[in-house]
Amino acid sequence: MSDTLFDRVALIGIGLIGSSLARALRRDSPQTKIVACARQSETLATVRRLDLADATTHDPAQAVEGADLVVIATPLSAYAEIGQRIAAVLKNGAILTDVGSVKEAVIRDLRPHLPAGVHFVPGHPVAGTEHSGPESGFAELFRDRWCILTPLPEAAPDAVAEIGRMWERFGMRVVMMSADHHDKVLAMTSHLPHLIAYTIVGTATNLEESLKSEVIEFSASGFRDFTRIAASDPVMWRDIFLNNREAVLEIVQRFTEDLTALQRAIRWGEGDKLQELFTRTRAIRRSIIEAKQA
Amino acid sequence: MSDTLFDRVALIGIGLIGSSLARALRRDSPQTKIVACARQSETLATVRRLDLADATTHDPAQAVEGADLVVIATPLSAYAEIGQRIAAVLKNGAILTDVGSVKEAVIRDLRPHLPAGVHFVPGHPVAGTEHSGPESGFAELFRDRWCILTPLPEAAPDAVAEIGRMWERFGMRVVMMSADHHDKVLAMTSHLPHLIAYTIVGTATNLEESLKSEVIEFSASGFRDFTRIAASDPVMWRDIFLNNREAVLEIVQRFTEDLTALQRAIRWGEGDKLQELFTRTRAIRRSIIEAKQA
Repeated sequence: MSDTLFDRVALIGIGLIGSSLARALRRDSPQTKIVACARQSETLATVRRLDLADATTHDPAQAVEGADLVVIATPLSAYAEIGQRIAAVLKNGAILTDVGSVKEAVIRDLRPHLPAGVHFVPGHPVAGTEHSGPESGFAELFRDRWCILTPLPEAAPDAVAEIGRMWERFGMRVVMMSADHHDKVLAMTSHLPHLIAYTIVGTATNLEESLKSEVIEFSASGFRDFTRIAASDPVMWRDIFLNNREAVLEIVQRFTEDLTALQRAIRWGEGDKLQELFTRTRAIRRSIIEAKQA
Repeated sequence: MSDTLFDRVALIGIGLIGSSLARALRRDSPQTKIVACARQSETLATVRRLDLADATTHDPAQAVEGADLVVIATPLSAYAEIGQRIAAVLKNGAILTDVGSVKEAVIRDLRPHLPAGVHFVPGHPVAGTEHSGPESGFAELFRDRWCILTPLPEAAPDAVAEIGRMWERFGMRVVMMSADHHDKVLAMTSHLPHLIAYTIVGTATNLEESLKSEVIEFSASGFRDFTRIAASDPVMWRDIFLNNREAVLEIVQRFTEDLTALQRAIRWGEGDKLQELFTRTRAIRRSIIEAKQA
């Protein structure tokens, strides 16, 4: 475990994922020099206090200077500007990757800026908690979770392999797929669940005051599970929905049709239809337990 | 803890909740004689094997004979028939309670059958897991959870107090409210979350095969939390939706309006609206943590 992964790594954005990556590098590759870049001075002060980086800066261009690996770990809306600002400074032969939850938009925003000689490997370590910021990170966040890489056809195989090896070192199972396919899978497994959770918690906040306090008290009966998801980072999630718009709208549409059918079955007392669906969904839970994802 | 709670208790229905209650009685009131009633012979065989009752029967009328306390713990659709069958046999002075997740329908189905001299105290221990059947129960299920009682105006205060004391003995916090209010609160905190979870898992099962297997693999990113809820007992939940129809349809309608508004915000790129809601929902999570329900 003592092989140095990269000599110099620039982390552009150092919240939950960026800081977990910094911690994992500190643990597994202590020779690596880390430069952390964030917009807010408070964030960088925390990074220095926690010794998550060897240098800190507000300037992405300064951060990437001389870096072998650049990891963008900001909300998606910042990518295009970061791409513009770092393009001219990226070292020849450097690898650029990211941790964003949407992949087609990331390619759209970064690819046009990148000079020849820079290897771009879009990535998505599928790991997280409802907490955010550099204090919430931990090196074990990646253990036994999936990392999806969506390399472009022009990507150098060595660069892709190097990124894969890094995430594997941190305990992840690495898988390749196209950016388009990634965005559809995640729309279903992650983006729709978050949208629904945000919606239902929003519906509860709009209730009459007399009901609202009791919703908190009796939240353990199902509602609570949604509130955890709906406590996720607001800016990160705003950007995910705006940047995976088509896949999200398509899956929301399917969900709404299915909900309307259930609503109708309840209205007309069609118990068989309800029971049939509820039996089918129970089987899915078993598949997840069998796939050791529960 | 050695005071006998009731001399003789009839449990009509002995699944997750009924068998947990039997276990709690065995532990905290070992002198109590328990009669268990279930439709299926297999269930009663399990009850005997686990020593959860002193006698077992398929006949509710036989079960309630001489019982000081009768607890109905079946799916809601069985209540009316049970009421009819036990009415003539209920001991004078007996207390009848239940554990159903809907309370107005329970009163509608049971009240007309009950003879004078029987004390009816509708109840809802708000506790459960996604598992069902007598093997899934455990005495600690009730610890630190709420029990809602919805006594009718004519209920004898002593009978209400006795039921309250029983659930408190098992670690529950007991609260009173009207049946109507209960059904509205639970529609939001429990019934809507379950309906949504069933829907989203159903939407996933309808996906193209190429996506479906990946939904299982990558379920940890949000979807998984819904599958646990959507693995709850199909018959019990069918009955809940059919028996709390109006409150559920009203809250589904609100949810759908809110989801449509979000869908529209995504389509038109209204990031501010998304971020504003996501910030508001995060605050709700904090309230739940502060209320010690997380």
